[in-house]
Amino acid sequence: MRAEIIAVGTELLLGQIANTNAQYLSQKLAEIGIGVYFHTVVGDNTERLLQTIRHAASRSDLIIFTGGLGPTQDDLTKETVAAHIGVGLETNQPAMATIEAFFTQRNMVMTENNRKQALVIEGSHVFANDFGMAPGMGISHAGSTFVLLPGPPSELYPMVERYVMPYLTQLLPDKQVFHSRVLRFYGIGESALEAQLLDLIEKQENPTIAPYAKEFEVTLRITARAATIEEAEALILPVEQEIRGRLGQYIYATGESSLHEVWVEELKRRQETVACAESCTGGSLASLITMVPGSSAVYNGGIVCYTNEVKHRFLDVPEEVLQTDGAVSEKTALILAENVREKFGTTYGLSVTGVAGPDPSEGKPVGLVYIGIAAEGLPTVVKELRLAGKRHAIVKRAAKYALFYALQMQKER
Amino acid sequence: MRAEIIAVGTELLLGQIANTNAQYLSQKLAEIGIGVYFHTVVGDNTERLLQTIRHAASRSDLIIFTGGLGPTQDDLTKETVAAHIGVGLETNQPAMATIEAFFTQRNMVMTENNRKQALVIEGSHVFANDFGMAPGMGISHAGSTFVLLPGPPSELYPMVERYVMPYLTQLLPDKQVFHSRVLRFYGIGESALEAQLLDLIEKQENPTIAPYAKEFEVTLRITARAATIEEAEALILPVEQEIRGRLGQYIYATGESSLHEVWVEELKRRQETVACAESCTGGSLASLITMVPGSSAVYNGGIVCYTNEVKHRFLDVPEEVLQTDGAVSEKTALILAENVREKFGTTYGLSVTGVAGPDPSEGKPVGLVYIGIAAEGLPTVVKELRLAGKRHAIVKRAAKYALFYALQMQKER
Repeated sequence: MRAEIIAVGTELLLGQIANTNAQYLSQKLAEIGIGVYFHTVVGDNTERLLQTIRHAASRSDLIIFTGGLGPTQDDLTKETVAAHIGVGLETNQPAMATIEAFFTQRNMVMTENNRKQALVIEGSHVFANDFGMAPGMGISHAGSTFVLLPGPPSELYPMVERYVMPYLTQLLPDKQVFHSRVLRFYGIGESALEAQLLDLIEKQENPTIAPYAKEFEVTLRITARAATIEEAEALILPVEQEIRGRLGQYIYATGESSLHEVWVEELKRRQETVACAESCTGGSLASLITMVPGSSAVYNGGIVCYTNEVKHRFLDVPEEVLQTDGAVSEKTALILAENVREKFGTTYGLSVTGVAGPDPSEGKPVGLVYIGIAAEGLPTVVKELRLAGKRHAIVKRAAKYALFYALQMQKER
Repeated sequence: MRAEIIAVGTELLLGQIANTNAQYLSQKLAEIGIGVYFHTVVGDNTERLLQTIRHAASRSDLIIFTGGLGPTQDDLTKETVAAHIGVGLETNQPAMATIEAFFTQRNMVMTENNRKQALVIEGSHVFANDFGMAPGMGISHAGSTFVLLPGPPSELYPMVERYVMPYLTQLLPDKQVFHSRVLRFYGIGESALEAQLLDLIEKQENPTIAPYAKEFEVTLRITARAATIEEAEALILPVEQEIRGRLGQYIYATGESSLHEVWVEELKRRQETVACAESCTGGSLASLITMVPGSSAVYNGGIVCYTNEVKHRFLDVPEEVLQTDGAVSEKTALILAENVREKFGTTYGLSVTGVAGPDPSEGKPVGLVYIGIAAEGLPTVVKELRLAGKRHAIVKRAAKYALFYALQMQKER
């Protein structure tokens, strides 16, 4: 099956955003053995989009569109694909209900152009949008299948995972199943991981092994092709065991859940609680934890202690420690973790203090970070890290390291 | 002038990297008024690349290629463009000298395939590669100009800045410039904004008006084409004034900075400080603020008060308020904002308390959010919001609303 991806949006042609959707979809299609031969970006222009559709239909079996499903006048993907096929649009009632609920909930009056988002191509298979208003759709015509998806990644990704992948899998000519296991790593970079597994990656056939880096975590997807899921599992197992033998200490979970989700679920299961004292991560660690639904059962609260005064006044870090060891030190991290745990009365206390940059602080280099993990009944642990990258990357990586070490500590309790 | 960008590389079609080169080049071309009409990605395959070149040459005046200039067998961009034009390749002596020097300096033996990198299309204008081995080149043929550039951004960017931009500028028929102003909105959705400006958008020509939503903010780009920047400004001004007359209350800034960046810059300029008490945003507000470099000058710290006990113990919200009004209430938001400001000794105290979902809380609906803004010398303000969307969207929107209202309050001080 020959596929191509067409992104529709003048903002891409103006360079306002990069076409990361094409990258994401290419990865997803590769996983189920569909080869992608072209990416195209075309602007919000009916004539050029129509030419692009015709050209794609003449050479590809599967054409996936992203963008141009929104409410405004320059959103014209479904209108133009429908014109190419020679059918009309019809209102999708579930989508209309979602849109109306959106405005009702907000006490807002729905403007007329929002109705447009509930229109789908006549006869198409509709993919619900669980994180937005415009549904996706798929329709086959004259030997090509057209799949139309929303542009915002926050809407696109879940739609692809939940609805589009099963739809595409049943388009495949043979009835083989593609089955994957995802191993989740932390504390190792993508290229170091690849170097350790190069022999396996080079000889891969079935299963395939694909490392991905996303949101500062590395995952490895092992995908097998077989007649049944059980047979695919049997192909995956020895490969997984080999990888665990080499890199087991970096693997924190399997599946689709990120570090913060794994940690919150494990806290819930054990009925444990956590509080955070954050200096350089500035709320990012708390934010990761509280983004998980139901985190209020395990997360009591925390203090963002950006200044020395706040560290001293709210978390009792002695002034002499701040002056001699400094705010960015093993000792400060230790005191912060223990005191935040005690003050908030939680099972765990996590602390992060470091230099996020762009400038050094206290004569300490950008990227130096200390993480403290205090746990009920265990000696407090402090880890020193030297992280690379810009401010944003250092902050995000430090927050995730805190969760990674907390998970390790949790296994010991 | 109609331009398109063709990236050559199978790694892009496998999703291993995103096509950020196309984004960069689109921005550079927009700066000098060259409109980009298509981006294409094609793999390392002679036949498909040749078809792509022919198709591009039939519709565009300027075709910019990235990638496929390296030493290996699957680098075939210049060979294929030369075949399309009907000319051969020739060795570029300065490039060959660069390549030889590279190996001599490192005491390495040059493998034969490296000579291939010094080959350029016969008769082309050569762009030196100051950060790598493969030179770029430009050549005009049958009404189209072909520009071939290396794929690695570290080689591409400096080559474009130093050599390609002057080359492209002298291709331009007239000396027009394109000049933009970006208006930044908050508190209004993209479709509501468009509905309010529909008459302007429909009759747009010069300047053009393009609304765009990103990270829960809406921006509007007004772009004018004129002989000089001053003339472009003169075209933009009346349109901007008309838009401000209609929607001025939602405009918080002009330019490329987001809400949190604008707020931190303004705090720095005024030498003011802020502290936050966050319930439902769970650290996201602090995280937004502290992601801005230099925020430590204005942000003292804050408390994430996820439980009632933390609200009471750390921020002195009276138990009877939590019991009668509830944690999600105007009164709690007011007390949190005033007390966090007092405890941290800052100019502003911001509070957010609400129901992020997925489940209602205290019998209050998902999306109900109260934001408190306490400021030195001004009466504290509390705003009630009813936000739609999933947990993640409610949290991000609530954090940005806090910044938006804080900016409004700041103007009154």
